[in-house]
Amino acid sequence: MGLGTVFLSEVLGTGILLLLGAGVVANVLLAKSKGFDGGWLLINFGWGLGVFAGVYIAYKSGAHLNPAVTIGILTSGADEFAPGVPVGVGSTLVYFAGEMLGAFLGAVLAWLAYKPHFDETPDEGLKLAVFSTGPAIRSYTWNLVCEIIGTFVLVFVVLALGKTPTQLGPLAVAMLVVGIGASLGGPTGYAINPARDLGPRIAHALLPLSYKGTDGEAVGKKDSDWSYSWVPVVGPIIGGALAGVIASLAF
Amino acid sequence: MGLGTVFLSEVLGTGILLLLGAGVVANVLLAKSKGFDGGWLLINFGWGLGVFAGVYIAYKSGAHLNPAVTIGILTSGADEFAPGVPVGVGSTLVYFAGEMLGAFLGAVLAWLAYKPHFDETPDEGLKLAVFSTGPAIRSYTWNLVCEIIGTFVLVFVVLALGKTPTQLGPLAVAMLVVGIGASLGGPTGYAINPARDLGPRIAHALLPLSYKGTDGEAVGKKDSDWSYSWVPVVGPIIGGALAGVIASLAF
Amino acid sequence: MGLGTVFLSEVLGTGILLLLGAGVVANVLLAKSKGFDGGWLLINFGWGLGVFAGVYIAYKSGAHLNPAVTIGILTSGADEFAPGVPVGVGSTLVYFAGEMLGAFLGAVLAWLAYKPHFDETPDEGLKLAVFSTGPAIRSYTWNLVCEIIGTFVLVFVVLALGKTPTQLGPLAVAMLVVGIGASLGGPTGYAINPARDLGPRIAHALLPLSYKGTDGEAVGKKDSDWSYSWVPVVGPIIGGALAGVIASLAF
Amino acid sequence: MGLGTVFLSEVLGTGILLLLGAGVVANVLLAKSKGFDGGWLLINFGWGLGVFAGVYIAYKSGAHLNPAVTIGILTSGADEFAPGVPVGVGSTLVYFAGEMLGAFLGAVLAWLAYKPHFDETPDEGLKLAVFSTGPAIRSYTWNLVCEIIGTFVLVFVVLALGKTPTQLGPLAVAMLVVGIGASLGGPTGYAINPARDLGPRIAHALLPLSYKGTDGEAVGKKDSDWSYSWVPVVGPIIGGALAGVIASLAF
Repeated sequence: MGLGTVFLSEVLGTGILLLLGAGVVANVLLAKSKGFDGGWLLINFGWGLGVFAGVYIAYKSGAHLNPAVTIGILTSGADEFAPGVPVGVGSTLVYFAGEMLGAFLGAVLAWLAYKPHFDETPDEGLKLAVFSTGPAIRSYTWNLVCEIIGTFVLVFVVLALGKTPTQLGPLAVAMLVVGIGASLGGPTGYAINPARDLGPRIAHALLPLSYKGTDGEAVGKKDSDWSYSWVPVVGPIIGGALAGVIASLAF
Repeated sequence: MGLGTVFLSEVLGTGILLLLGAGVVANVLLAKSKGFDGGWLLINFGWGLGVFAGVYIAYKSGAHLNPAVTIGILTSGADEFAPGVPVGVGSTLVYFAGEMLGAFLGAVLAWLAYKPHFDETPDEGLKLAVFSTGPAIRSYTWNLVCEIIGTFVLVFVVLALGKTPTQLGPLAVAMLVVGIGASLGGPTGYAINPARDLGPRIAHALLPLSYKGTDGEAVGKKDSDWSYSWVPVVGPIIGGALAGVIASLAF
Repeated sequence: MGLGTVFLSEVLGTGILLLLGAGVVANVLLAKSKGFDGGWLLINFGWGLGVFAGVYIAYKSGAHLNPAVTIGILTSGADEFAPGVPVGVGSTLVYFAGEMLGAFLGAVLAWLAYKPHFDETPDEGLKLAVFSTGPAIRSYTWNLVCEIIGTFVLVFVVLALGKTPTQLGPLAVAMLVVGIGASLGGPTGYAINPARDLGPRIAHALLPLSYKGTDGEAVGKKDSDWSYSWVPVVGPIIGGALAGVIASLAF
Repeated sequence: MGLGTVFLSEVLGTGILLLLGAGVVANVLLAKSKGFDGGWLLINFGWGLGVFAGVYIAYKSGAHLNPAVTIGILTSGADEFAPGVPVGVGSTLVYFAGEMLGAFLGAVLAWLAYKPHFDETPDEGLKLAVFSTGPAIRSYTWNLVCEIIGTFVLVFVVLALGKTPTQLGPLAVAMLVVGIGASLGGPTGYAINPARDLGPRIAHALLPLSYKGTDGEAVGKKDSDWSYSWVPVVGPIIGGALAGVIASLAF
């Protein structure tokens, strides 16, 4: 399979993932949405089924949808990222690029789907939360620990899946993501994916998101919280790399 | 397979879909129902499992249950709507007719199942919401965008399913619909299916739904909101057609 | 397979169904339970997964667990209730007896599991609700209609399952029951199974359930609501029979 | 397969189970967590999907993850604990040891993931609840009955799974655990696994968990509730043993 196909596949799959993932957060947080205040399990299902849809869309390229998965496959010592896609520097960068672009575009689509609700929501923090994760209690050390642990579980189980005669395919990954969100999402909002967090944060910075008051004046100051942005990138990279190493020893 | 069989199959399948779909909305919105105020995820599961049941019932005809799916298969350039059902003008119209009639009949059955609760609910808007979707924030442009995006995801992933060795069949479509509802249902209530919205809206217009006050006088004015009715028809048609075209290029 | 095996299998399977089904209602309704006020979707999953467990346990006998399913298979004109179990008067009665006894015993087990919570719950109506269904709005006609429709969906889809190459088995039936509860359970609490309602109602009548006040005196009068008890028996019988007839024509 | 592999496999699998299981309780109970007050169904999914992930991880050793399962296989009279692992005194002890160590380590990991939230939660009882179960109404007799019944259902259905041509594997066990939690978790919090309760209770006793007030002084007294600790050990052992015996007769 050509790397162009891999790129397109990961863009589409990660795009659908972010469209549904950012979408469910918008549904729960933004003013007047029908799913407003719909609860944590609703958010978990939204993200889990976003992965579900994305895996079908990106089936051809192995549906990494996540640089931490790509890295975990690398450190596990596998020969191929997907059937017919050899591991290499070039292919690694193509996965990263597709994942980042897809995450960016999916977040933009979610913003379009919820445009009137963004306009009606005064709280800038809620708008950012649709795009990117933020900690419940800010502590770079412990937030990093939480992202490492959550991503480790994700990549470790994904690598275990391939060693079992499971028939569940995309559903297994989807339910795994529901479970990680339910159980380990409390402290940081479970980025567990550098592209899922950084791509939409860039979108947040570029899109016109300030609230307009009744007089047309912008209200509130947009803040993409760049000081936190490295945590959901570095944590998942460490967690994914660690999972690959341990998986290569354990399975 | 004869087109009469296709017609009957789509009537039954779409009927079950609407019975369960309109049913869950009635359960959550109508007075004194045991699932009253049961939350958005409950609504998502009701619709998703309505699709689940409908797909089993309409298995023979490929279980489109949705003109947007029929149109997506058309624009994807497929030869058959289902094994043994060639794509053509006649077969397309038979699918549309079966889907519309089924959606109409299913909504009538849901009304019968919840008859005493309709009688006890004064708010006319809640009654309409059992039948047809309405926007959280009325904006024809953005409501249309949201329906296009949601339907695109539905049809695009359904077309992707057929290209993967999935074993999940009806469950995959059901979970996909749960996910679209959780993530993209907030602004418009996710019609993502012209028949699902228009058939029940016609039923709403025809059925005796005015609230009777204690003196037997009708209270409130029934309004089927025809001014909005084109959005959940046109949006899904565009979204489905687009998904077919892109799927034919991408998969 | 001998009818003794069938009997035992249905007793065990329906017993597990009622243990988990009555259990989830106890969890949501009884005082001080950890799942108190846990919502309608929780109840739906409890019953659905009760069916799930019961189907595995009663796999050998086809896991009817429900006289309405037995009747639906009868009216569908099938030759066998399960592989190696011919349809006949004797086998029909054996299924009915096993289903009734299992439902009775399962409800007793659920009562044992929640014994301290029954003791702490003063409201007699809530205790009955753990055992048997009751209408949200009492109307024998419409309650009957609702039970007919709900059971029709259950048996009709169960009969459709057998005609499709599904790989989901017990999960399909479980999810179907989650869906029927979510969508059609609002008016009557979805008995959709004569044994599920009548067996536990007999248990309710026989068990010592009056609330003891602080002085040891019984508080409140136990009422098993026998005037309603025919609805969740007759409705499901009609619905199941109807589903069998229509399935024999449609599939 | 060597017993060292079995040991490692059960440590990893039970570790993931407890990480996700204790994690979801932390998410729902601890101060400022994003899933705070997320409801019983969220907790049920967290534990169920913890089992799901653990089963994939411990696939090689049959994924007991629970001494009650090990005991149930013993009393069912099976020859092997997993393909290539003969039943014996040594292998039994290896399973027990792996399950206990894994449960201990998983709970420690969950504590690390939620460290800042433990620090912000003054209520000592809530912290203990993240690690180990406790009764809603303390009654050693009835709490024991409830744990026996719940574990019986778990092990009985798990043993039934192996006799049916199910394709669901880990998902079946996961959904079963969701169902047992939804239905039978109300009185005791469903340990249904001696290692799941005792391992984390030891972790609770060893970890530094006292709340620090603003002046740095410890607030509240840590109590690992050892007086209750035998119930979630003895109950599951009885329930598992009973399930094995009855399964050997019934299936």
